[in-house]
Amino acid sequence: MNILDIIEKKRDKKELTKEEIQYFVNGYVKEEIADYQMSALVMAIYLNGMTKKEITDLTIEMANSGEILDLSRLGKIIVDKHSTGGVGDKVSICLLPLVASLGVPVAKMSGRGLGFTGGTVDKMQSIPGYKTDIDINSFVENVENIGISMISQTMNLAPADKKLYALRDSISCVESIPLIASSIMSKKIASGAEKIVLDVTVGNGAFMKNIDDAKKLANEMIEIGKLANRETVCVLTNMDEPLGYAVGNNLEVIEAISFLKGIMPEDLKQVVLELGSYMIKLSGICADLEENKRKILENINNGKAFNKFVEMVKNQNGDISYLENIEKFEKAKYIEPIIAQNDGYIHEINAEEVGKVACNLGAGRVKKEDSIDYTVGIVFNKKVADKVKNGDILGYIHANDLERLKIAKEKMKDIIVIENSVKEQTKTIFGICK
Amino acid sequence: MNILDIIEKKRDKKELTKEEIQYFVNGYVKEEIADYQMSALVMAIYLNGMTKKEITDLTIEMANSGEILDLSRLGKIIVDKHSTGGVGDKVSICLLPLVASLGVPVAKMSGRGLGFTGGTVDKMQSIPGYKTDIDINSFVENVENIGISMISQTMNLAPADKKLYALRDSISCVESIPLIASSIMSKKIASGAEKIVLDVTVGNGAFMKNIDDAKKLANEMIEIGKLANRETVCVLTNMDEPLGYAVGNNLEVIEAISFLKGIMPEDLKQVVLELGSYMIKLSGICADLEENKRKILENINNGKAFNKFVEMVKNQNGDISYLENIEKFEKAKYIEPIIAQNDGYIHEINAEEVGKVACNLGAGRVKKEDSIDYTVGIVFNKKVADKVKNGDILGYIHANDLERLKIAKEKMKDIIVIENSVKEQTKTIFGICK
Repeated sequence: MNILDIIEKKRDKKELTKEEIQYFVNGYVKEEIADYQMSALVMAIYLNGMTKKEITDLTIEMANSGEILDLSRLGKIIVDKHSTGGVGDKVSICLLPLVASLGVPVAKMSGRGLGFTGGTVDKMQSIPGYKTDIDINSFVENVENIGISMISQTMNLAPADKKLYALRDSISCVESIPLIASSIMSKKIASGAEKIVLDVTVGNGAFMKNIDDAKKLANEMIEIGKLANRETVCVLTNMDEPLGYAVGNNLEVIEAISFLKGIMPEDLKQVVLELGSYMIKLSGICADLEENKRKILENINNGKAFNKFVEMVKNQNGDISYLENIEKFEKAKYIEPIIAQNDGYIHEINAEEVGKVACNLGAGRVKKEDSIDYTVGIVFNKKVADKVKNGDILGYIHANDLERLKIAKEKMKDIIVIENSVKEQTKTIFGICK
Repeated sequence: MNILDIIEKKRDKKELTKEEIQYFVNGYVKEEIADYQMSALVMAIYLNGMTKKEITDLTIEMANSGEILDLSRLGKIIVDKHSTGGVGDKVSICLLPLVASLGVPVAKMSGRGLGFTGGTVDKMQSIPGYKTDIDINSFVENVENIGISMISQTMNLAPADKKLYALRDSISCVESIPLIASSIMSKKIASGAEKIVLDVTVGNGAFMKNIDDAKKLANEMIEIGKLANRETVCVLTNMDEPLGYAVGNNLEVIEAISFLKGIMPEDLKQVVLELGSYMIKLSGICADLEENKRKILENINNGKAFNKFVEMVKNQNGDISYLENIEKFEKAKYIEPIIAQNDGYIHEINAEEVGKVACNLGAGRVKKEDSIDYTVGIVFNKKVADKVKNGDILGYIHANDLERLKIAKEKMKDIIVIENSVKEQTKTIFGICK
């Protein structure tokens, strides 16, 4: 077997065998296959696609390229949750303590964020003391003891995927459905998931810009799940405007804390209910989705969800006084209002653009080595479809640098689009694929 | 401008501007663009193609990436000849002294061969003493003084093409019509050609396996020629069986010497007449193609073509006693007959397979550093369509190694296909594109 024949086969739109996929994944990780050869193969995959069998084989080989987390000692069905990414996405922080409080074991490893804002791990680290880099044994023990642990990716999970992703990023081949699907699923499989609930975001702030593409991606992942014996459910959610009101690391944690205390932005609530009801179902606790939603709201109202969150933060050395009193969180130097310039209805708050503004304020990383400013970002007062008056405060920009604040203020004027005509409420949940 | 946007554009099947093509050609030569990025772009070009404008821009940028030979001091129209390659291809050695003897100035720089057998330069070097690595000034002086010089590529011609070709070879992207066309034409333009006659070979022993693809390639090159102001004529010739009878370096030189002395295999004669008549026409000497063919045969018969060859060899330090007495050429240790196993007609002598056998005997290079054995190869007695009897000698294998000889003998049994049914004579010239 040699890489030239494999490239030629994919170039000519033929199906690669499991052995050929194994050969190039292993060869690439071992650096026996050069970047420039992999690069040609990736472009051929981008343009000629892959069959469902190929995508599944690729997923499994990438999962097998590194360590695999074995959670069998928990003796329970492990349901993992993942999002294809968005702006203002604090779903994991709200959802996971919630389902844990209902008996779903949560062993969540997240990567660090690249792009708009930090990832879930970065956000959690804005709680002083909270440890995310704990060893795997303690991680599994945490789940055994209190039913939940959220940490950073301390294991060498799917290194082939990591290497391939970096390459794709440097050759304009990120937006490939087979490659996105196998990338996500390989990490889920390596991190020990038996069942998977995916939040597939759709809109300008997401990988998938339209519902058709999102459905394609969802179906690819479901198919991989079937062939790899990992039941998978995808919830298609709106990412045209930021989720909830806050964008920025500790700003989102504060919003998540409020959420767990019962102050729930409607869109965030819908996403949490939808994903949560499927997580409970897949974990085998209760198959009735409506019943599950009721239980979720119940555990918000009776404080059990919030208490589970407190328990987890305490268990990982976090200072829980911040959870009790969110005023303790460090604040940015400048907090400036965004003022409506005219009367009307908000027609658009472009999530992608908001993400860029947040990143530019310091909330995100451009390069892996960049450090993150936990305090900066934007907190909106309004959502799309809201009626506003000239002079209303639409939100606040949190900044630590005057120059960046100025740029952000300018940008926000264009980003929040106010028009005279009434704007219909946007949908949050576009559908379920399973 | 950046390479990611350029890759994305070609990935999405959009036309690249002249500036974008300039950017990636220059960037690649200067090593500012990584191999793996170029590799993705090349695969995108392979799969999505290029417009005629793009191909021409690429050709000109590659030509401009290195030195350009200026032959204007010759004060004559410079017509260059090139072949897309084949097995037993000794056309340049026969044709160029011939047209030079008729007043067409010949300034021929050839690359070394990679693959089946050596290139023209390697073959010429099998004449003891013949110098191919002479400096450019002496080269042009030779053409001024005696009307012809054939040397190796001593200038840094189209280095972008050289680098790109090596990359294509290592990522299964050689057989791309836009890339083959621009590669050939960039070298021709850089080597000072004003008019170009191309031998576009078709068949199993050629780049282009069928007439449709060969026509596409020919038309691409003609179009580049038009846009780059280099009139180009393509002759489509058969490369399903080796050209002439000899395959191997000094074996082909011996055949070329005999040709110039009037012993002309029919297929080789047709190719030489066709290409030659166009070279004479494009050089402005005589527009009547039939008249040109008559003149060519005349200069074979009156010895002027052979004398021009002798003059050139002498002028470049070659031992002309070998030309007068071909028995002087060094011979391989073993010369073994290939025997017909049954009666019938030869239906096939697969050129590609013959090329591989010759290469394996030592006549060709697999890697650039490999040395070439001038003496080994195959000399056939028969051509496709010939009637043969069981026990007839079909040709001779020339070898210096018993093990390789044995393999070659085995292979030749399968390569020369004899069947009972009558086989029609194959066409040599498939057509002209201009």
